Amino acid sequence: MLAVHLEQGRVEVRRRPRPRRRPGWALLRLRVAGICNTDLELLRGYYSFQGTPGHEFVADVVECDSEALAGRRVVGEINAACGQCEWCQRGLGRHCPQRTVLGIAGLPGAFSEYFTLPEANLHLVPDGVADEEAVFTEPVAAACEILEQASLPAGARVAVLGDGKLGLLIAQVLQLNGLEVKLYGRHPAKLAIAAGLGIETEVVSSLPQARYDWVVEATGSRGGLEQAVRMARPRSTVFMKSTVHGAVKLDTAPIVVNEITLIGSRCGPFPPALKLIASGRLRLREMITGEYPLAEAERAFRAAARRGALKILLRAAAS
Amino acid sequence: MLAVHLEQGRVEVRRRPRPRRRPGWALLRLRVAGICNTDLELLRGYYSFQGTPGHEFVADVVECDSEALAGRRVVGEINAACGQCEWCQRGLGRHCPQRTVLGIAGLPGAFSEYFTLPEANLHLVPDGVADEEAVFTEPVAAACEILEQASLPAGARVAVLGDGKLGLLIAQVLQLNGLEVKLYGRHPAKLAIAAGLGIETEVVSSLPQARYDWVVEATGSRGGLEQAVRMARPRSTVFMKSTVHGAVKLDTAPIVVNEITLIGSRCGPFPPALKLIASGRLRLREMITGEYPLAEAERAFRAAARRGALKILLRAAAS
Repeated sequence: MLAVHLEQGRVEVRRRPRPRRRPGWALLRLRVAGICNTDLELLRGYYSFQGTPGHEFVADVVECDSEALAGRRVVGEINAACGQCEWCQRGLGRHCPQRTVLGIAGLPGAFSEYFTLPEANLHLVPDGVADEEAVFTEPVAAACEILEQASLPAGARVAVLGDGKLGLLIAQVLQLNGLEVKLYGRHPAKLAIAAGLGIETEVVSSLPQARYDWVVEATGSRGGLEQAVRMARPRSTVFMKSTVHGAVKLDTAPIVVNEITLIGSRCGPFPPALKLIASGRLRLREMITGEYPLAEAERAFRAAARRGALKILLRAAAS
Repeated sequence: MLAVHLEQGRVEVRRRPRPRRRPGWALLRLRVAGICNTDLELLRGYYSFQGTPGHEFVADVVECDSEALAGRRVVGEINAACGQCEWCQRGLGRHCPQRTVLGIAGLPGAFSEYFTLPEANLHLVPDGVADEEAVFTEPVAAACEILEQASLPAGARVAVLGDGKLGLLIAQVLQLNGLEVKLYGRHPAKLAIAAGLGIETEVVSSLPQARYDWVVEATGSRGGLEQAVRMARPRSTVFMKSTVHGAVKLDTAPIVVNEITLIGSRCGPFPPALKLIASGRLRLREMITGEYPLAEAERAFRAAARRGALKILLRAAAS
């Protein structure tokens, strides 16, 4: 089979033996996968990564134990947890200290014709949902996570900072959940996607100071958090959605003096994400910048890294 | 009257005219004041401060409008708010954007024979409470603030990082509120004060990793926040109690990946602090390292800056 391999800043496509599934795990055949900013960070050396990346995917179940999954089209949660520990018992396997993470840590990823995941991680894709929509389930779930972590009052004004892929999804998810979102970004063409959903947008020149009770930092940049804190009012909440590699410089005094709460926020729940996608109300197809065969992953990564790019898809050859 | 003056890293005691009170404000005559780390930071240039510092005090009311306050012994909240804005209406005058702050921003402080504060800021000191105890009300209130900002479950294990003045008070306040505190510090003599209250203590050599659901960062140092984050488990909460001057370097990835919540925490409510002090259960007198007449403020500041020092008091001459 073909599998993408990242190593020392290079993207290659290699031939590899098809993986074997463990009991309770499913063997999956890729349909389509999405390149995420985390994949670009892995290419730059984040987590000292080397191997097959990929954690946003739609696949067919080729082999499994469960009859309900056999032959079905699925998406999957990316944290493969032990199932035994306190975190797993609490339904928070995504924080299991023994976990591996698909395409990120200890588990070969989805940029591969075949790969494996625990059956418990898989969710059926509803029939009416196209692959090109379902492939957004993982990042839409990451956007939904914000709603799991805090009770935002209906109609509250929320600033989302950053018009990249995740910022656009967060803005849409929050707007569709009854919040009044304002999206700040640098790219008129990207902001226009959010505006199509009725979201107020602004091309950033100077950011407002101390205006919001709720701010989401999704710039993916080192300076984003300090900007988000400046936009936040006393006693407000800032969600931290960017994973950046290495230390950032941060003036913590305004956080203490204004008693701001910062909430780190990562992976989220798949069922509400799939439901939202199935509703057809998210603007997902407009977020696809290009599509490449898996065999052309190197070109695809270059396209994903280009300024102004949104989602780049990798498609497996039909079997 | 005598008043301390800080300017360009120097402490002087100057003669000044007695201040005039505004309507609704009280003229106060100092009894005793405490030097706080913030005062030492102001001396180092925090807030580009120049003027009379001091915000921990016990004083007598010399002139006022309210009969209930005339001639009484009081402590006072340090934020002088407008009383009109949204924050003031919500009872959060300490976040009023128009506020001045006693001895910190726009309002001459308590290291002075006479000074003024709004009557609304003043609280009577119960008769049984000595000046040397009541002078801790402001920092005890800052410790109580943690309990206002989050619901810590009864008996929860809390790590307090830092055995300085504020760390010691936080450890005591949390322990006396039914939490199971462990205090990490560098000074056996300081830790012994907390141990006297039944608090578990440890001289820091290497800190535990990912062990606590609740961590309070009170080191007053630039590196404290990163250490506190390392001690915190996934989905845990870290209270930020240190105001340090300038940018800190922080690896934000573990905050995002482990979905840690950071809560900036500053001034707190005086009534529960006074109640706790009046109970006689806090170990406050042991925290007093030395006492100086107001006229010897320069020596007092030097003593407060010395390694191992805890609270240094300034006492006004008897009138």
